[in-house]
Amino acid sequence: MKFRDIVTRSRSYRRFDTSFRLDDGQLADLVELACYVPSSRNLQPLKYVAVSNSESCADVFGCLSWAGYLTDWHGPVEHERPAAYLVMLCDLEIASGAACDSGIAAQTILLGATSMGLGGCIVASVERDRLRSVLGIPDRFAIEFVLALGKPVEAVVIDQMREEGDVRYYRDAHGIHHVPKRTIEEVLQQFR
Amino acid sequence: MKFRDIVTRSRSYRRFDTSFRLDDGQLADLVELACYVPSSRNLQPLKYVAVSNSESCADVFGCLSWAGYLTDWHGPVEHERPAAYLVMLCDLEIASGAACDSGIAAQTILLGATSMGLGGCIVASVERDRLRSVLGIPDRFAIEFVLALGKPVEAVVIDQMREEGDVRYYRDAHGIHHVPKRTIEEVLQQFR
Repeated sequence: MKFRDIVTRSRSYRRFDTSFRLDDGQLADLVELACYVPSSRNLQPLKYVAVSNSESCADVFGCLSWAGYLTDWHGPVEHERPAAYLVMLCDLEIASGAACDSGIAAQTILLGATSMGLGGCIVASVERDRLRSVLGIPDRFAIEFVLALGKPVEAVVIDQMREEGDVRYYRDAHGIHHVPKRTIEEVLQQFR
Repeated sequence: MKFRDIVTRSRSYRRFDTSFRLDDGQLADLVELACYVPSSRNLQPLKYVAVSNSESCADVFGCLSWAGYLTDWHGPVEHERPAAYLVMLCDLEIASGAACDSGIAAQTILLGATSMGLGGCIVASVERDRLRSVLGIPDRFAIEFVLALGKPVEAVVIDQMREEGDVRYYRDAHGIHHVPKRTIEEVLQQFR
């Protein structure tokens, strides 16, 4: 797949075929990608917990909130829930914060998932204390994000957004998820 | 190119063939990639200034510091300087900060550059006031990073790092740049 196709096909998917399970090898392949990415001062404070069995997935799911703009949707139904998670941690003995590393690593993992025919979503709305308890995460680690992963079953389309337009994504009457994105004309600036 | 190869070949390059110029179309292609990436609450506050002509490149170069761990190296010599830059801004009228968006976008652009046979480096050590003045950047925008871009001319190798090892990259006697990276065994944690 061309790189541009990987980027455009890598949407934030929130509905999956739960019966399509990811194995630990696939999760390790995704984490391995993150071992090669740039890191501020090369400190590499990010660490990961892989969650793939059904019971642990249910525990993690209970700690997440979904799609803030879809106020009448409370997350995927049981057979459309993520089949696996990567919980991204910052090792506080290495760095006091993840700086830009978390975005670099999360996007690399999501693009990697897309290149493998999978998909995912960066979930930042996490009940962190509860998740810490569920997975036994020591205080030494801050919880950055949860990456939800699986075989996507939803259609996501990108709509070109008008300047000053509405950034809120929405679902249309056919259940298609629309995401307004700024155009290059708005994003590429020239001041001189 | 396979996605894993793009990731492993996308190193932080700091020496380029300055005579290999990037055109505005290539820079626009890289910024266009960043229009499709995930954004916290889909706000998309990031904007870009593309710098490709030699004089402006020299001005931007004067605002940058290079490779903090190479204390006896003060940056690339004239014919090995970046051939172009993308200055990443956060539009403060859209969001008070870039959150994880900056890392997501920077990595996508660098992977895109690698997929085009180019390379680059996220430069965070920037004299921001000076750069603002050089490019006429209004106060409405915070300067996040400068992405240095060009045709790389240096060899960068990844060394597997031992746990508790030294994270500092270095150049060997042959001028090869070595970057220690943590192994997946260290990075993938299990607590239960």
